[in-house]
Amino acid sequence: MSTDGLSINLATVRQQWNLREAIEACVRHGIRAVDPWRDQVAVIGLDEAARVIESNGVRVTGYCRGGMFPAADEAGRSAAIDDNKRAIDEATALGAECLVLVVGGLPKTSRNIDAARQMVADGLTAILPHARACKIPLAIEPLHPMYAGDRACVNTLAQALDLCDLLGEGTGVAIDAYHVWWDPALASQIARAGASNRILAYHICDWLVPTRDMLLDRGMMGDGVIDLPSLRGLVQKAGYRGFTEVEIFSADNWWKKPGDEVLRTCIERFHTAS
Amino acid sequence: MSTDGLSINLATVRQQWNLREAIEACVRHGIRAVDPWRDQVAVIGLDEAARVIESNGVRVTGYCRGGMFPAADEAGRSAAIDDNKRAIDEATALGAECLVLVVGGLPKTSRNIDAARQMVADGLTAILPHARACKIPLAIEPLHPMYAGDRACVNTLAQALDLCDLLGEGTGVAIDAYHVWWDPALASQIARAGASNRILAYHICDWLVPTRDMLLDRGMMGDGVIDLPSLRGLVQKAGYRGFTEVEIFSADNWWKKPGDEVLRTCIERFHTAS
Repeated sequence: MSTDGLSINLATVRQQWNLREAIEACVRHGIRAVDPWRDQVAVIGLDEAARVIESNGVRVTGYCRGGMFPAADEAGRSAAIDDNKRAIDEATALGAECLVLVVGGLPKTSRNIDAARQMVADGLTAILPHARACKIPLAIEPLHPMYAGDRACVNTLAQALDLCDLLGEGTGVAIDAYHVWWDPALASQIARAGASNRILAYHICDWLVPTRDMLLDRGMMGDGVIDLPSLRGLVQKAGYRGFTEVEIFSADNWWKKPGDEVLRTCIERFHTAS
Repeated sequence: MSTDGLSINLATVRQQWNLREAIEACVRHGIRAVDPWRDQVAVIGLDEAARVIESNGVRVTGYCRGGMFPAADEAGRSAAIDDNKRAIDEATALGAECLVLVVGGLPKTSRNIDAARQMVADGLTAILPHARACKIPLAIEPLHPMYAGDRACVNTLAQALDLCDLLGEGTGVAIDAYHVWWDPALASQIARAGASNRILAYHICDWLVPTRDMLLDRGMMGDGVIDLPSLRGLVQKAGYRGFTEVEIFSADNWWKKPGDEVLRTCIERFHTAS
């Protein structure tokens, strides 16, 4: 089966392989695009990661992840900004096409989500000049509202696009089916994102019923309730011509299966269920 | 401490007491308003439930719950409509001030959330004449998006208010802090709800970080990350003068404590953390 347009977010096989092994496995399966995570890069080192990527000729459709801007004090927020600048440098070294941002939730002991959202806007403003200089687009990923407290206080595509409107050139969105499928405003906001050329990445997996863990029980495409073909239609109609990236966190299922089986299934379901 | 304005949703003590015991306990603690669930009423029977409510002089700030409209076939949808009409009759018999609606998620094997949402609108349209005749307002409760698949495909206050706009007189919303606290459009939509006099109920509990179970790990006010005083301010500013109803599903914590301790804590936190 063709793997044209398919990218694998390497979190999908993080328990099976290190970065080199994962990329070599992707190539073995005919997959020519990946999205690595910073911790995976750190394990083998940035230089080695860049060599593995270049020698295998894979595209890097995104780099996961920057963000996590809110912090309880100025020192924490400043450290987050520095860390994001390093992430931009790493993305540059790896030839990544965007930096995916999980913006962060509430600082410890805070109940002020408006303030956290302002910290996100401030953090993005602070790193944007560096991102522009490096030509690394910032892909703001709205996360499912169930992560508003601890992972991301940007929770709808509309909200992410409002941030892009505020920040301007060099920003866009990563649309992940898992996070946005429920949104009553989804169709109109995808159209809005497309009209401003702001769709930087499109991630897929599936929402399982029941979902047994809020973080690590994402489903393989076709095993849940998301109408992925319709969602793909909306994204394509909005003008997106980039990769479809499979990203599955699955502690009790896919992370326990042989990596080759996971990749084979990703390819198959990319065709039959997305 | 005063219990003025406080109502207890009886799911909060469902593991400790039956309906009679729960209402008598509320009265013992000076709480004069409750929101019972249909299954609690069924255990002691509707007539007996009505007697317990009347003899104890408690207000019934809502009746939980109607809804669950989507179904895989016409027979299922028709059965849901009939069941909702019975719920309206029960609410009438109990003197409830509204019927709270958890509208339902996707029918089994369906991935079409737009169709499910249409089934909700159709179901509401079908029961509204009976609700109007009985003078039981229908309180559409937007549920957190993490329930979109299996419990409610109405997931934002804006969406619930759009339904009210469509349906007209006799409909409104139940605003539950747990379900809506994350919404970037919350302030404007609460104002919208107030401007049209559509806030029929205001429920509180707290969002715990981490949340260990998607259904049964709600927190006591003050133990989580929701800024309940600010939310109350928004609701009051919108003109709501009704009760504040505590509704906590907590399988591993509050449902395991003595009911009197739970009620004492609800009263205390109603004052200190909401």
